Amino acid sequence: MVMSIHINERKNLVSVSDLTTAEVQVLLNEAQAFADGKTWTPDTPKFVANLFFEPSTRTRFSFEVAQKKLGLELLQFDGETSSVKKGESLYDTIKTLESIGADVVVIRHPEDEYYANLLPKLSIPIINAGDGCGQHPTQSLLDLLTIQQEFGDFDNLDVVICGDLRHSRVARSNAEMLSKLGANVWISGPRSWMNGFEDHYGYLSMDEAARRADVMMMLRIQHERHDGHESFSKSDYHKQYGLTVQREQQMKKDSIILHPAPVNRGVEIADELVECERSRIFKQMKNGVFVRMAVLKRALKQI
Amino acid sequence: MVMSIHINERKNLVSVSDLTTAEVQVLLNEAQAFADGKTWTPDTPKFVANLFFEPSTRTRFSFEVAQKKLGLELLQFDGETSSVKKGESLYDTIKTLESIGADVVVIRHPEDEYYANLLPKLSIPIINAGDGCGQHPTQSLLDLLTIQQEFGDFDNLDVVICGDLRHSRVARSNAEMLSKLGANVWISGPRSWMNGFEDHYGYLSMDEAARRADVMMMLRIQHERHDGHESFSKSDYHKQYGLTVQREQQMKKDSIILHPAPVNRGVEIADELVECERSRIFKQMKNGVFVRMAVLKRALKQI
Amino acid sequence: MVMSIHINERKNLVSVSDLTTAEVQVLLNEAQAFADGKTWTPDTPKFVANLFFEPSTRTRFSFEVAQKKLGLELLQFDGETSSVKKGESLYDTIKTLESIGADVVVIRHPEDEYYANLLPKLSIPIINAGDGCGQHPTQSLLDLLTIQQEFGDFDNLDVVICGDLRHSRVARSNAEMLSKLGANVWISGPRSWMNGFEDHYGYLSMDEAARRADVMMMLRIQHERHDGHESFSKSDYHKQYGLTVQREQQMKKDSIILHPAPVNRGVEIADELVECERSRIFKQMKNGVFVRMAVLKRALKQI
Repeated sequence: MVMSIHINERKNLVSVSDLTTAEVQVLLNEAQAFADGKTWTPDTPKFVANLFFEPSTRTRFSFEVAQKKLGLELLQFDGETSSVKKGESLYDTIKTLESIGADVVVIRHPEDEYYANLLPKLSIPIINAGDGCGQHPTQSLLDLLTIQQEFGDFDNLDVVICGDLRHSRVARSNAEMLSKLGANVWISGPRSWMNGFEDHYGYLSMDEAARRADVMMMLRIQHERHDGHESFSKSDYHKQYGLTVQREQQMKKDSIILHPAPVNRGVEIADELVECERSRIFKQMKNGVFVRMAVLKRALKQI
Repeated sequence: MVMSIHINERKNLVSVSDLTTAEVQVLLNEAQAFADGKTWTPDTPKFVANLFFEPSTRTRFSFEVAQKKLGLELLQFDGETSSVKKGESLYDTIKTLESIGADVVVIRHPEDEYYANLLPKLSIPIINAGDGCGQHPTQSLLDLLTIQQEFGDFDNLDVVICGDLRHSRVARSNAEMLSKLGANVWISGPRSWMNGFEDHYGYLSMDEAARRADVMMMLRIQHERHDGHESFSKSDYHKQYGLTVQREQQMKKDSIILHPAPVNRGVEIADELVECERSRIFKQMKNGVFVRMAVLKRALKQI
Repeated sequence: MVMSIHINERKNLVSVSDLTTAEVQVLLNEAQAFADGKTWTPDTPKFVANLFFEPSTRTRFSFEVAQKKLGLELLQFDGETSSVKKGESLYDTIKTLESIGADVVVIRHPEDEYYANLLPKLSIPIINAGDGCGQHPTQSLLDLLTIQQEFGDFDNLDVVICGDLRHSRVARSNAEMLSKLGANVWISGPRSWMNGFEDHYGYLSMDEAARRADVMMMLRIQHERHDGHESFSKSDYHKQYGLTVQREQQMKKDSIILHPAPVNRGVEIADELVECERSRIFKQMKNGVFVRMAVLKRALKQI
């Protein structure tokens, strides 16, 4: 108990599931304020270290833009050119950055829950930018912000999470948080990829999903996390489980499409739909900056 | 026609050949003003993303210094650590950077005219920092600025472009623009490397070139773009086609030597000449910063 | 003689051995002032280029934090993505960075005395951030600062340098400078690793060392610089030559432990001791920032 209070005081963010709905709402409100043009910078210079042990474009640059908008100083850590090459552990690396002056660390790491052993021992906050097939809390928050901007709140919204639920870092925490916030969560995609979700959420075929959804929350097929050969050809997958142009035409008037990107065009979603009127995919990216500004401000104990 | 006006409004710079001589002169004047100590920063914070898909020292850092002198915020994209590794396309990558907040992108890419499909679809300007064996407009502009600083204008200057014309990104656009500006353009080097230039420009032996030139515009032998073995040993090449110490002694009193660097010392130019009195090689690098400041200011629609 | 005055005027720092004790003291005082909260920034914008040709975490980020605290503009050179890939020499690379606007260069390079040929030819100062098995002057200075903070001065302090003296970049210059400053320097570790030090400094067993030392200056076993197999297993090394928990208990009341890190936990030092009360390992890292601020200020001719 004491430890978890300590962690909370440090304002880590490793999983959205650690947040109450009230805390989520505070973060969304702060993010919306930034979206509306609010600015904020800390009183004294602050350093943030970004440690990305996996490729990333959106998350990495979104954090960078957020940090620069907040006037923070960046330390860009690269596993390839660091003492990690000499065998230095993640703990010793972060402890070093802390000693040198980092006030916050942002970490993406291929290992699930890489942070579990770190949290009790560090005195600066960690922001999790993605762990293995685990969590990706700022992605969850930007999904929520994009939905809230569209519909005002989450009450009785039908949200269908579609596709590669096995490897998604956001499917579980999004499903849980959306339920807590009042939405009706559904799932769709290959049965063998539902990963236990079918015990808690209703399953829909993609045709049913398209017709019912207020929000089609498409997931990326994470080819790089699949072992060996896929069970589907890309075009078979698209026909059976993808958001096709035909299915999009069945969607309700004001319903929207989300996707965390990078998109496999023509697989989980038709090429033409990526920038269609219903798509909020690039809106999500914009919101990613505002959400990360809020999360960074919180880590600096200003929220 | 509408599209090309739209492109122009966006202030892309993909090729010097797209510019009128008047537009070139405006850019050179602005660059010269920066060289003379003028400063300028945008009214609101602006982000520039630098995407370099090929090794570079001069161009990359010259852009960086230019950007920092203009007070811009930099996003340093690295193909190796980005979602390009997950198969994301160049278009989706730039679109992402645009969504996240980039106001301008600077791109170096190994593919000729990588920008052709991008231009109609993007809404932020592209500055081309080199495409395959295609264009390198800021290099062309810094060559022009260096000549103009020396001679005041281009009227009747004898400029000899020497060496690896096949793989040069600046030979063709420099030849065309120099002609338009009033210079007499000549070529020199191995006959089989003249790449069609001999239809439009007079060929000189290196001995003739050295005696006639006001400007010896040496090109780098791009070993990394040649397929298989060279037809010349380095020392044979130097004797027959290089700027040797002997040839330099034949040059006219006020004539100068240019080279885009990196230099193959002792191949296209004698080691001792790289920093000789006639050499403007490091002057060119200095000018590169000022030219890029002008090009960036133009991209931000302030010229 | 003229050259060395010229070098001195340029305020290079390639080796602590080039500094007088008075110059060392000036740097330590300046560093201490920064540690005490003093700030300083140059009157006009200054650019520093960081060239790291070997992996580094502490040194690299410590320089970065120091530079940002001084308000300098950074150019982050990466051997992998530069024209070094096209065969450009270190000299031409630095000359390029100088032309583009770098006021100072910080270099880590795997080759011993990589700077020897550069110094007479460059006009901007070099700060050596480590050369092969040669020198690492800012590490030496931060070691000295940490000792001075603890004991006020160096008179009659017993300092034992322990371990891999063959591959250390600081052992020799630390031993020399500590002797000049009045300390008694001892050595300890495998006899075959003493590398000529035994001609000038007394040898102690690790048991004797622990009992006598005011400062246990542990060195990192540089596995990556050892050729082939080690003569010791890790646990054998730890028992015979490492700072074990048992030996730490024999240390004098106020004596301290230094280590440049990264630490091989359980080899040269027991895991539990890395963050023990006597350990100044993370204090050293903090001090590294202040020392580098002083060295950078000196390079900019402000000390």
